[in-house]
Amino acid sequence: MQGLMQEWPLLCHKIIDYAGTIHAERPVVSRSIEGPIVTTTYADMRRRSLQVAKRLEKAGIRFGDRVATLAWNTARHMEVWYGILGLGAIYHTINPRLFRDDLVWLLNDAEDRILFVDLTFVPIVEEIADRLETIETVVILTDAASMPQTRLANAVPYESFIAEVDDDFAWGTFDENTAAGLCYTSGTTGKPKGVLYSHRSNMLHAFSMSAVDMLGIGARDVVMPVVPMFHANGWSLAFSAPLNGSALVMPGSQMDGGSIYELLTEFKVTMTAAVPTVWLMLLHHLDAHGGALPDLDRVLIGGSACPRAMTEAFQERYGVDVLHAWGMTEMSPLGTVCSIKPDWDHLTGADRLDLQQKQGYPPITVEMKITDDDGKPQPWDGKTFGRLKVRGPAVAKSYFKGAGGEILDEEGFFDTGDVAHIDRYGYMQITDRSKDVIKSGGEWISSIELENVAVGHPDVAEAAVIGVPNEKWGERPLLVIVPKPGSTPDKADILHHLSVRVAKFWLPEEVVFVEEIPHTATGKIKKTTLRDMFKNHTPAE
Amino acid sequence: MQGLMQEWPLLCHKIIDYAGTIHAERPVVSRSIEGPIVTTTYADMRRRSLQVAKRLEKAGIRFGDRVATLAWNTARHMEVWYGILGLGAIYHTINPRLFRDDLVWLLNDAEDRILFVDLTFVPIVEEIADRLETIETVVILTDAASMPQTRLANAVPYESFIAEVDDDFAWGTFDENTAAGLCYTSGTTGKPKGVLYSHRSNMLHAFSMSAVDMLGIGARDVVMPVVPMFHANGWSLAFSAPLNGSALVMPGSQMDGGSIYELLTEFKVTMTAAVPTVWLMLLHHLDAHGGALPDLDRVLIGGSACPRAMTEAFQERYGVDVLHAWGMTEMSPLGTVCSIKPDWDHLTGADRLDLQQKQGYPPITVEMKITDDDGKPQPWDGKTFGRLKVRGPAVAKSYFKGAGGEILDEEGFFDTGDVAHIDRYGYMQITDRSKDVIKSGGEWISSIELENVAVGHPDVAEAAVIGVPNEKWGERPLLVIVPKPGSTPDKADILHHLSVRVAKFWLPEEVVFVEEIPHTATGKIKKTTLRDMFKNHTPAE
Repeated sequence: MQGLMQEWPLLCHKIIDYAGTIHAERPVVSRSIEGPIVTTTYADMRRRSLQVAKRLEKAGIRFGDRVATLAWNTARHMEVWYGILGLGAIYHTINPRLFRDDLVWLLNDAEDRILFVDLTFVPIVEEIADRLETIETVVILTDAASMPQTRLANAVPYESFIAEVDDDFAWGTFDENTAAGLCYTSGTTGKPKGVLYSHRSNMLHAFSMSAVDMLGIGARDVVMPVVPMFHANGWSLAFSAPLNGSALVMPGSQMDGGSIYELLTEFKVTMTAAVPTVWLMLLHHLDAHGGALPDLDRVLIGGSACPRAMTEAFQERYGVDVLHAWGMTEMSPLGTVCSIKPDWDHLTGADRLDLQQKQGYPPITVEMKITDDDGKPQPWDGKTFGRLKVRGPAVAKSYFKGAGGEILDEEGFFDTGDVAHIDRYGYMQITDRSKDVIKSGGEWISSIELENVAVGHPDVAEAAVIGVPNEKWGERPLLVIVPKPGSTPDKADILHHLSVRVAKFWLPEEVVFVEEIPHTATGKIKKTTLRDMFKNHTPAE
Repeated sequence: MQGLMQEWPLLCHKIIDYAGTIHAERPVVSRSIEGPIVTTTYADMRRRSLQVAKRLEKAGIRFGDRVATLAWNTARHMEVWYGILGLGAIYHTINPRLFRDDLVWLLNDAEDRILFVDLTFVPIVEEIADRLETIETVVILTDAASMPQTRLANAVPYESFIAEVDDDFAWGTFDENTAAGLCYTSGTTGKPKGVLYSHRSNMLHAFSMSAVDMLGIGARDVVMPVVPMFHANGWSLAFSAPLNGSALVMPGSQMDGGSIYELLTEFKVTMTAAVPTVWLMLLHHLDAHGGALPDLDRVLIGGSACPRAMTEAFQERYGVDVLHAWGMTEMSPLGTVCSIKPDWDHLTGADRLDLQQKQGYPPITVEMKITDDDGKPQPWDGKTFGRLKVRGPAVAKSYFKGAGGEILDEEGFFDTGDVAHIDRYGYMQITDRSKDVIKSGGEWISSIELENVAVGHPDVAEAAVIGVPNEKWGERPLLVIVPKPGSTPDKADILHHLSVRVAKFWLPEEVVFVEEIPHTATGKIKKTTLRDMFKNHTPAE
């Protein structure tokens, strides 16, 4: 028997309608790409996104068409998203840090018809324009006065583009499973694969991640999403902030410590979010120039594990709570948040930091399990680690155009590629990537934990651990070290440092010293390259 | 184009799975009907609801079947809900305060197969048992030891009933639009009409009403739902509390001021919810016996308008924030919550209380409009009032078995039967019921506002205003007054009191003094009866 409640599809543009009426006057502050800091409101943003939708429709954009954005976080970028969404078209965010060939490949793969681009990235577009097969118009996110000289034949300034129409437009209404956004994962191997969010998945993700013990954002918050909208669905803040009437501060292209500090203090930001690298820059800035963060209540840190020292600095030195989080592009993107349950309120100092090293627990919309290589579930005991698999309404079931084939197990879980343990309270901690974990005699050795311990040695600048084939054990760890400038650490000393901190069978037989470890465009260690480099490595003794 | 995210239906029993694993050890305290206060956990509740589901299946309950509950708020009642939900069957909550004939009518109309009943209500069931056409088994919510003597042939004690099976049971999985719960509205005229909630509507309601600026409940909260689960879907707290890992305190049958005060203080309740009558009893208790509410952070008050003096008492005397709310059975049930937006943080004293007299603003899932009698939208100016209509995923589109026919307007909005104004910030205030508003010469006069002003007169115990036909104006207000014991107010004096407080054309020509005003079973003024009483009223002069 069916219930008798109204059909009311979960459509993302209803968020901007809601914010634009019920929270109409809440400010949206942007550091514009042209330079000045500009302030607008949700009511303005709603009107302008209606204009964007009307103008895109005039340009021939239809339901299901892809529209690309290559842009920083600004009110303009956000209103472009909502305008696209309101037509049933698909926002496709592009990471400008990708290599040119990848950019070309994915713009063509997505068959984007229009490209919205920030002034900053016009040179990139000029470079690749000849190879773009489907882009009809390049809309430069500025006004006519600030329009740059460009050799792009089909470029128009944004403000003139949308000024051709008014905001008298009726949003589309359609099935909530309609595709809403497209974001490619920057896989370390092979071509990037597109994750295709739906209106429903974005809305449910925003609902569940806004909860009190997840991001806990409300109308009293001033939220600054430093994490770019082109990075993993912008951690959904372009949806969850207006959904809750939070004010927004959009940092544009300036993410250095000084610029971020200026916005945090000037606009009394209460909650902000980004990867550890950004916060390292902020903390360095504060170290060098002094300063305080009296308004900032909490900072969401994810993308890679948050260093313990960073959590400590924010909390003890600046009185800002750290919310350690984990997620991935395929998860819309947030999976877990390490908020402190009331049972752990009494923890202080090192004990509290220990707990906060975990990536946290999920909302109801993320089901987790850890399994061995055969798919057998592992216990939630806080030490046994296994492949982390997830299921939920905002988790991918397949990639755009079927890339990568079937990706769910027989129970419908997606393998995150991470290895983790989970404690009995549901707190999860990532211990490795599954392709990097070292399988030695039936036991798993975490390459990340070994690396973390190795960089704790005073002479080690960077460390990487890979598995190398071993006849007896299957695989054994090989430790690759970049010594600190001027130091010449010795193997025995390193091994001694490790031996008092990890289990005996984890100890690498081999330690290799190199000048540099290879990295991906996004700063992660390129373990595939390392494995290639050392595949014919002959033991030193 | 469809998005490529996982199918993951919104099913209510996923809430107890989530709470039972991620918030496994959070306590659920109940004042049992047998007497003692008992404590259990979400993990226990999950196990026992699996048992309930398995046992109901064994009893032949299938997808779509209705199972009735006539019970107070206890952990048992909640686990019964989840057990029913996990089969795709439908919990049908029954208000024991209804007249016997109505009880019989709606148990038969719903075709309930099993009835779960608290000890308190066994006499009622005994009284009507012979007239129940579809009930196969009456499960009395107690154990064998506390089983009463009963002439019910088909009665079994709950604990023995579920002990016949273990908790090894797999929840059903089905379309999220499947019916989940049935709750009849206690209409003032005609037969009650059934509202049929779906799994989806309950989940979306719980998500949106849990938001920071709505109920704002989290794992740190200890929530006491005093509003009974049989009243308007229990204000959804049986879903929103476990969804957010809040601890629960269930008051059972004892709602007098002393009992409520004992639970509030003993179990450090942080948030509670009920109608004004309950809070009046608590405040009287505090007046009489003294006491403080140091743990209580906020109290949700709805069901009828929260008196200004009550808000003032809670806030100024006890430091407890009042969340004035509005909703109805047809809305799952919450529609608006009067939380203070940051723009109004500066309000104090009388100004803050003025704002809090409003019923508040909605979450995204409740769209509102006010219209005149012809359906023409009225402005959001905070004074023009109109018929309040709502639309959203947790709003009814029709009643059970088609009772009442078509209930939505051409835009899909449901007419709430309330008259309200809305200000430009989205704050709504109810000014009347649409059937009670007096239409005089094209202008609307609020009967409720007139009543409120009238009871402000020192000699008036209760006041009711109805419209009486008038040749020139269409309708004019008639004021019916119950004087305070020992006082004999006079008409001129009452009219003078009104004349300095309301617009001139609102002033009633007629004031009638009576000994008693008729009320419904739930304590509301029976205006239909009043109108009958005074339909042949001859003006006194």
